[in-house]
Amino acid sequence: MRIRGEPWRSIFVGDDGWTVDVIDQTRLPFVLEVCHLRTTDDAVRAIRGMIVRGAPLIGVTAAYGVALAMRNDHSDVGLQSALDQLLGTRPTAVNLRWALARMSDVLRREPPSQRVERAYTEAGRIAEEDVAACADIGRHGAAIIERMSAGANGRPVNILTHCNAGWLACVDWGTALAPVYAAHESGIAVHVLVDETRPRNQGASLTAFELGAHGISHEVIVDNAGGHLMQQGRVDICIVGSDRTTRVGDVANKIGTYLKALASRDNGVPFYAALPSSTIDWTISDGVREVPIEERAAREVTHVAGRADDGSLLEVQVTAPGSAVANPAFDVTPARLVTGIITERGVAEAFAFHQAAG
Amino acid sequence: MRIRGEPWRSIFVGDDGWTVDVIDQTRLPFVLEVCHLRTTDDAVRAIRGMIVRGAPLIGVTAAYGVALAMRNDHSDVGLQSALDQLLGTRPTAVNLRWALARMSDVLRREPPSQRVERAYTEAGRIAEEDVAACADIGRHGAAIIERMSAGANGRPVNILTHCNAGWLACVDWGTALAPVYAAHESGIAVHVLVDETRPRNQGASLTAFELGAHGISHEVIVDNAGGHLMQQGRVDICIVGSDRTTRVGDVANKIGTYLKALASRDNGVPFYAALPSSTIDWTISDGVREVPIEERAAREVTHVAGRADDGSLLEVQVTAPGSAVANPAFDVTPARLVTGIITERGVAEAFAFHQAAG
Repeated sequence: MRIRGEPWRSIFVGDDGWTVDVIDQTRLPFVLEVCHLRTTDDAVRAIRGMIVRGAPLIGVTAAYGVALAMRNDHSDVGLQSALDQLLGTRPTAVNLRWALARMSDVLRREPPSQRVERAYTEAGRIAEEDVAACADIGRHGAAIIERMSAGANGRPVNILTHCNAGWLACVDWGTALAPVYAAHESGIAVHVLVDETRPRNQGASLTAFELGAHGISHEVIVDNAGGHLMQQGRVDICIVGSDRTTRVGDVANKIGTYLKALASRDNGVPFYAALPSSTIDWTISDGVREVPIEERAAREVTHVAGRADDGSLLEVQVTAPGSAVANPAFDVTPARLVTGIITERGVAEAFAFHQAAG
Repeated sequence: MRIRGEPWRSIFVGDDGWTVDVIDQTRLPFVLEVCHLRTTDDAVRAIRGMIVRGAPLIGVTAAYGVALAMRNDHSDVGLQSALDQLLGTRPTAVNLRWALARMSDVLRREPPSQRVERAYTEAGRIAEEDVAACADIGRHGAAIIERMSAGANGRPVNILTHCNAGWLACVDWGTALAPVYAAHESGIAVHVLVDETRPRNQGASLTAFELGAHGISHEVIVDNAGGHLMQQGRVDICIVGSDRTTRVGDVANKIGTYLKALASRDNGVPFYAALPSSTIDWTISDGVREVPIEERAAREVTHVAGRADDGSLLEVQVTAPGSAVANPAFDVTPARLVTGIITERGVAEAFAFHQAAG
């Protein structure tokens, strides 16, 4: 997607043909800065320090991290050491594990002297496959938005989204935002209501940055506001991402998604989750009971990061000193509240999905 | 209620018998500081600058503002000037208008020389009536919590609340928090889940401060978390305040209340609004359509106030520069989602309430 007219991706190989460049997402939305990864350690630091985040982007960064390792030591020992080091960065990320397993399989079959080139090729393929899947999600989702637009008499289709499931979380396009970009590219008027998404505010910072930089009309709202806006007829459709989707169509996503799904149902607003089919967990049928929900650090709730009037980036405490905090990171939206699942293969009604899995 | 064992009110006449002392709520939860109001101008500044906030407390502060004015000029002209000045502070506050009308009625009937004493007496009565009403709300609400406690096998009753409807918004006890304090005073084990309540974070700052200072077990959560916690059985009851309640029992309250009511209904959690019966608006029957919702300043969303690591209190920007913002301040929870209304007169099921009004 574009930043002020210029095409960007969240990760790309630099002009020298081997340095891996990533946007430093810890500095967004206030500073746009590229971070140059030249060693496996750099890649590890980028993932661990959340310079890159979002499951697909973490997977691609790890794959390139293996490629960087091969430049230094392309032996079996060097490969295993890089895999171990990268796997330890975010232990629960499914894409990370999957991308490293794929790099391992491919490179072990290759003579050591060929591994550098092969590693860059494979990491590039993983990135391109992600871009293609996201573009397909965009195409299928845009068809839904286009149908709504036909009934909107020329006014923009109002789309509510939660957290950041945009191109910054992937390589390009994004998942939940791909249909928005695709609709916009087709000339369909869209307006996005962006939940700020406490505690980490990825909506207010990353999603708002993406949409603004690409030139898409949007408004940031607090997480509390979506229900009221739906009551007032100001939301036509909700599209969110998903970290994990059960085989019956329950959607585990950033905390607060379930509340928007409830409000959608109460106000007759269609509610879609957009996700690559690789994130469907076919082993789980009751999301609310079976998906383990990570409890994250209290500091995410007690402190908020932002930019002070003097331009410095810092954190301020917002909660009463001494108060305890609970910080569940995700919630599960039961399939009964989900209108449909948008994947790279097409759109499935959650209920049909449920039947097929049952 | 108490702050670290010492009894406090949000407003009181100082030791000199005439200075009006208020807690400076702009400095909470980090600094507990009393602000001394000695002139009508001081009272105006306190209300306008949100040193005091909460409808009942604003009303009482305005009444004492009239008393301060009478010390300076107890003529009819002096009285009218004070009333006009105070009325202009927060044009939409119903309690403010009501308290000033009462002061005006009482003082006009009094010879000017008696007005200072009479004004202090009447302002004191308004304060005491508020305390009594809140205490009654507490008693009625505590009976509900006590019944839940009986079924909880000794574990605390988990109560979710939104925003600040505690003693800091009133004079003592509060509305939504009065049942919590009353239950705690009766020895019933309670644990409060406190929504931080963006955009102004009155839950994380004021409610958490109140509960912590009084010694009541609580946890701060982001506004996104309540639905998940209900799904996991970690909420027994929701109690919120109300800025305006329609004659059919629709509850207008701080933005985000509606989302928690939806989650309560979806998970079978009782949802109560606690309010003085004076805030019921008997002229309105369809809250969602008829209650006007104030759109507040964008800066409340774009910036967050807190304490930096060096101890300074400041605001940081959290949204992407240039992004537009929508900031509706309240939402309306339809009566169908409200289990009951707790007032100083007792508890009414919202449906019965609806029938009586119909």
